[in-house]
This record gives sequence, C-alpha cells and structure tokens, in this order.
Amino acid sequence: MEFISPAGRTSYVESMPKKQSKPAVSANISSSKDCRVALIGFGTVGRAVAKILCENPQPNLHLTHICNRNFERKKQPWVPAGVVWTDDVQSILNSDVDIIIELIGGLNAAYPIVRSALEAGKSVVTANKQLIARQGPDLLELTASRGCQLEFGASVAGGVPVLPALRTGLCGDRLHGIAGILNGTCNYILSRIEHARIPFSEALEEAQARGYAEADASEDLDGGDARAKLAILALAGLRTRVVPESIRARTIRPIDAIDFDYAAQLGCTIRQISRADLKNDGLLAEVGPCLVPLDSPFGRVQRNLNLVLTSGQYGGDMAFLGAGAGGDPTAVAVVSDLMFVAEGLSGKKRSAASQVSTPVVSSDFETPWYLRFYVRDQPGIVARLAEILAAHRLNIDALLQKPGFDKASLPFVITLEPCRDSALHPALEKMAELDFSLRPCLCLPILR
Amino acid sequence: MEFISPAGRTSYVESMPKKQSKPAVSANISSSKDCRVALIGFGTVGRAVAKILCENPQPNLHLTHICNRNFERKKQPWVPAGVVWTDDVQSILNSDVDIIIELIGGLNAAYPIVRSALEAGKSVVTANKQLIARQGPDLLELTASRGCQLEFGASVAGGVPVLPALRTGLCGDRLHGIAGILNGTCNYILSRIEHARIPFSEALEEAQARGYAEADASEDLDGGDARAKLAILALAGLRTRVVPESIRARTIRPIDAIDFDYAAQLGCTIRQISRADLKNDGLLAEVGPCLVPLDSPFGRVQRNLNLVLTSGQYGGDMAFLGAGAGGDPTAVAVVSDLMFVAEGLSGKKRSAASQVSTPVVSSDFETPWYLRFYVRDQPGIVARLAEILAAHRLNIDALLQKPGFDKASLPFVITLEPCRDSALHPALEKMAELDFSLRPCLCLPILR
Repeated sequence: MEFISPAGRTSYVESMPKKQSKPAVSANISSSKDCRVALIGFGTVGRAVAKILCENPQPNLHLTHICNRNFERKKQPWVPAGVVWTDDVQSILNSDVDIIIELIGGLNAAYPIVRSALEAGKSVVTANKQLIARQGPDLLELTASRGCQLEFGASVAGGVPVLPALRTGLCGDRLHGIAGILNGTCNYILSRIEHARIPFSEALEEAQARGYAEADASEDLDGGDARAKLAILALAGLRTRVVPESIRARTIRPIDAIDFDYAAQLGCTIRQISRADLKNDGLLAEVGPCLVPLDSPFGRVQRNLNLVLTSGQYGGDMAFLGAGAGGDPTAVAVVSDLMFVAEGLSGKKRSAASQVSTPVVSSDFETPWYLRFYVRDQPGIVARLAEILAAHRLNIDALLQKPGFDKASLPFVITLEPCRDSALHPALEKMAELDFSLRPCLCLPILR
Repeated sequence: MEFISPAGRTSYVESMPKKQSKPAVSANISSSKDCRVALIGFGTVGRAVAKILCENPQPNLHLTHICNRNFERKKQPWVPAGVVWTDDVQSILNSDVDIIIELIGGLNAAYPIVRSALEAGKSVVTANKQLIARQGPDLLELTASRGCQLEFGASVAGGVPVLPALRTGLCGDRLHGIAGILNGTCNYILSRIEHARIPFSEALEEAQARGYAEADASEDLDGGDARAKLAILALAGLRTRVVPESIRARTIRPIDAIDFDYAAQLGCTIRQISRADLKNDGLLAEVGPCLVPLDSPFGRVQRNLNLVLTSGQYGGDMAFLGAGAGGDPTAVAVVSDLMFVAEGLSGKKRSAASQVSTPVVSSDFETPWYLRFYVRDQPGIVARLAEILAAHRLNIDALLQKPGFDKASLPFVITLEPCRDSALHPALEKMAELDFSLRPCLCLPILR
C-alpha cells in the first residue's frame, strides 16, 4: 500500500476514517521487528495522535494500549477493538510495549512515568515542554545509558518541525543564536492590539473568549511558557543546559495600543520574542516584548503562528514558520517522532522507494490570470480581445492601463477570473493571430 | 569535548582552523563502529564540507580520501596528513570506505559512481540535484536492497533543511501540496527588477556580474533547475515519482519592469514559483513566473533566498526560509546528512546529553531601547530625564510625542542608542523616583 496515494487520501474532516480492508492499527500482530506503542493521555493531542495512527497505518507500528482516567467515557469507535483501554499506568510500564507516548502533560505526574519507562529500556515520545525544559538533560543521559530513545519534537512550536531540523538538517552547523515567537497567546494578543488598537485588557478577553488564552493566562503573558520552550531550543540547538528560571522573562501586560503607535513611528511593531545567543563564555537569553521592524520576519507573524530563526556559523540564518499549537499539528510532531524512534528500534529504514506512486502530471491549475499585451494602439482592441474571451467563456476581472506610453507600443493588462489553464489556452491562440499585437501575450497565474 | 562550547567557537572567517590538541580529522583511527568517509569532488562545496569536518571533528567520522582531478593543485594545508588525495575514483570504490560524498555534480559522471558505490553496499551523500531528480527513485530502491543509505538533503534549497524536515518532523503528516522559490538566480533577477525597475536584460547582466547567474543562465531562467528540485520535493514530500521533463516550465525572460507596475496595482509582485499539488488521481505541477501578493511569504522573499511552503492534511501550512545556495550553507546540509548516515551505520545515537555545556546565563543584551513614560505634564520633564540619562552615559536617539493627549496623563517615548541592559538599569531606578511619573517606565529592547 502506498503511503500517500492520491486516490486514497481522506479529506480533512473530523469524520470517522473510511472502512479499510485491513485493520488500520493491528493490535495483535507482533513480529520481532515491529514496535508496540502505548499512548498515555487521551486529551486533544492524544486523540489526534490516535486518529493519525488509525488513518495512516504504519506497517512497523502497533498501537496496543491507550491509558487515561475514566477511559470508558473516552472510547472511540474508530479505535480497533484489539487496543487495550486502561487507567493503570503501571500495567503499561510492566507490559512489553516498546514505545510510550506521554501526553498527560505537567511535571509531577509525567516525570515518574517517563523516568520509569526509560529505566525499563522503553523509548518515550513526549510533547511535555515543562518536563523536557527541566529534566531533559538528565533524561537524555538516562536514555544513553539504557540504549533507548527520548524524542520531544512536539514540545516546542507544536507542528513546526524546528526541533527535528536541529537534530537532522542543521546538526552539521554550529549554531550560535536562536530566536523565536514561541507563544501563540501572546502573539494573538499583540497582533490584535496592533491591528485594532484596542486596550490590552480587551485583547486578552477576546483571546480568552476564542480559546487562545486560558482563564489564568499568567504562564503565557508573563513568559513562563516561552522560556521553557527557549530552554529546550537552547538544549537542542545550542547544546546548552539552561534552567528555565535562569532566563529573565518580562511580561507583555503593560503593552498598550499607544505603544504600537509609537513603534510604528519607528518602523516597528511589538512581539513577544524569545532569544538566546552564545557569547564568549556565556549564554545571553531573555523572553519578553520587543520592538521588531514591521518588515522583518518577526514583524509579519500574525495571530497564533510560531516563528523560529536559527543563526549558524556556516549556514547563516534559517526561518521556520507554522502553526505552533493545536491538536492536529502537535500530533503530526508526535507521530513523526514515533516513526523516527520506530525506525531506530527496528533498524529498518523507511524506504522512500517502496511507498512512491507514479501519478499523471499536469499543469492544469485553476487560478485567476494576468494577461499582458503589447499592442499598436488603434480603436477596438479591447472589444476584439473581450469578444475572444467571451467566446471561450472566460470572465474579465479587471482592465489595467497605465497612462503615458507611446501609442505605437502600448502595454496593458487584462486580468481574468479563475479558470483552468486548459480553458485559457485556446483563447490565447486566437489572440495571437490579432494583427495589432506586437509581442506574444504574457500570461501569468495569480496566486492568492 | 563539547560539540559547541562557546569558548571554543572559531570565528566565521576564511582562515585556517586553530591548532588543536588532537587531530581534527583522524585519518588512521578505525574502530569497528566508526565510519570511513571519502569525498569525491573538491570544488566550492567539497572544500566547505572538508573544512567543516576538520573544524568540528566528529568522533565517529573519519575522512580518509579526497578525490579530484589535478588533486595536487587542490591540496590544503588544513587537511590532516593521513587523508589520501587521489584522482582515481575506482580506488575509492574498491576501498573500505563506508560513506561516499559525491560532489562532482552532473549526471553522466556522477551516476555510475553513485550506482557502483550503492551496489558495493556503501552509503552515499550527495548534493546532486539532476542525479536525484532523474535517478532518485531507482537509486533508493537499490539502497533498500543493499541495506545502505542514500541522502540528498543538499540537492534542494541548499542549506534550508526542508528535505530533512520532510524525512523527520513532517513524516507523520500527509502532505498534499508543496510550493517554493527554489532558484536564487531567478529570485535575484526578479527582485532586482522589482526594486530598481530596470529592464530584464540589465538585471540579468548584473546577476552575471555578481556571480548569481552563469554566462548561459538558461537552466535557471527557463525553469530547468527549479523543476528538477520540484521533482525531488515531490518525491520526498508527496511520495510521487515525477520525471522533471513532465513538469511544465515557463521562462522568466519576458518579464519586464512594466509587469511589476501592473502587478503592484493588483497588490502583487512577481516570483518564479515551483508548485505541486496532489489532486484527485494526479499531480498538478508547474514552474514559472507567477503573481504573488506583496504581503505573502512568497512576495517578501528577496535576493537569492529560498522559501519552501508545505501543506499537510493534519499539520496545515509550514514555511522554511534560508540561503538556497552557497558553499557553506550547502556544506551544512551535506555534513548533516553525513552525520545522519553515520548514526544509522554505527547504530549509535548521538547523545545530546554528552555534548551539552552549562553556561552562565545572562540577559545583558546590548540593543537600542524604547522607553515609554506616562507623566503628569509639567515643565522640565524632558530635562530631568535627559539629565539622568546623561549622568549614566546613555545617549538619546529620539524623542517621540504624539499630540492630542490629556496633560494629566501624557504618554511619550524616548529611544536610546545601543547600550547594555546592565548599563540602563540604574538609570531606570533613578527615573522611577521622579514625582511626575504616573506609571513605571515601559522599557523594551529594539531588535534590528
């Protein structure tokens, strides 16, 4: 079965997966090379992880346990019958599962579970920011001694694959700086004040009403959340061990609409920035609101997106932008880590070759179009072009003509409403025959 | 030895690496778990790869051979004496090297080398775009049958780690679309026309003079380069096998300054965009100039940067931005792949824990500052503040005061020239004592 075959793709809806000829997740198949996976924590992210695993079965991954309090109320019809539902973590630690996905969050409950799992030689995938920010270095030492793995790609910036990139594509560089917009709540509030010039309190209430901020949003507003993430980025990218509390965090609470007015006078806007720079024999690190140029990558990050910039000695600057939170994006990071760990455990590389389809390739995109003509001006040109377009059932959106050009060589533009390339092509051929046309019509798609 | 210890970082200059107490690259140490590496092709990228390997020795990687025509003229004093220089590819294929880095480029010379290496069970790291675009799927099948690895992270977008991200952090998603600015030459030319409104021919000449375009730039201008890259992205991200020639490529040659005028009227600019979308049972794919909104990620990509956007069923949209070419960024991608392959071959995970330093953390960044005051207006306020700042040797850059506020609660701003946080703090304490101040001064760093 192909990993992604266009015909088999399911639509992006919150529906039950289509009935499949073989079970989506095989709970009772266990070959020596396959990995048995337990999911601890079945909240928003846990549910999304299970859904991806059920919709996209991986041959070497078998979900065997789901653990949650009151699991009876959590059961989902799309989870295969063979999966064991339980509220007993210890039974999972004692079982033969190879990989534990820890998604209960928090430090007190999660730490002993992850530690016990690693001590038992089980690998762990977690999205737990506080756990990794505080115990990450020690837990990584433990994995080294036990020959298992700990992956935490979902703990920073949700679905933005910056941690995996640090582990792979950037590991050959020597990074000396990392900076990011790591907290979607702050970014939502600040970009709302920026655009609506509303007071801070109103933007906060709005964020709370929309579910972008919790009732007690202190962790977000005062920088606690972002500095935990910065500590993880500093660990993964700068190879430094930093206690989150040693990073100064300034609150965004005093920022008000007037500050965006003054910032704009300076060509800037305001964002909560987390930044860390290796400098001489120390680490400069801080989280808090900063003025950033309006036309900089930071200045353009709107709503609840996350952006991470890395600076390396050899590779220079890189930027990663995407959804920093949400069940599905975070679940992608968790499942990706899971596949990576399984690959390491099974010693079997996922072969790109075996999962590749050979589709029919076409360039017949449907877009609006920009048609630029160079003509010898004479009466009736637009009428002739409009007539051809109408005959091919193509709708004109706008006609643009800048003044001041020589009538002997006049450039003007017609834009068309969305249509397929294949529908436009015959009209272009007809227009090429017109005697007033000085150059072939330049025809460009307009991407929105 | 720490992977990155701030004290040991070398500066970013084209100099010989500092003398090190142990050899940077051990050519004659060979433990059973270590990987012997041969570098074939010692041009700009090959030289940069060797430099990174020499400056950042990896315990499990040993550069044993460098292969190039006229190698005598290529020899570098910073390459350890134990490394064998040769022009005989066959001797490398017959040797006990584990990994071959292929950096000679082109199809005819490189293909038989890579094929022979893989058939001999050696793993290959390559930056060869044409090779992977054309032979990638077959070569990957060969690696699967021989139990070796083929990595090509440097073949698209140079140092931008999009291919590694597709392999790791995004592998848990189902991508349905990829779009990018993949050709730095086109982007340089188009953004030059955009900003200087010069004719196409002049922008091309400028790009050639600056080394951004070759004498015969057809591969770049007419889309051949970009569609090979798009074919590789479609393979790695959409799991589709696409012959580059099956992707329509439109040239950017007819684009002229006037088109940027008309595009601007539509809120757009023009970029060479490579895009591929899985749609029903086929693949829509194309390379060519398109109108893109000025305020979109594409519209903002200037000069010779590369941008790649991915769209996934679960994770939504992600953007990757960075240097798409250049010896050092491309070399980072090659070395990163090399470390990844070595990790797989040795079965030894690089332990993050063992390479981590514990630096002193400080927030004493040096930046310009934004100070916002709320005061009860009275004569002499600015004089008092300026006096305190001067006493602390802090230089005022600007004074901003919007009209129309109540004098009983007046907000105004002073910006300061760059200084350290620690230098500013005592002045802020003094200012807090002033009786006309209604709120604590809001003090924000200005990032440039």
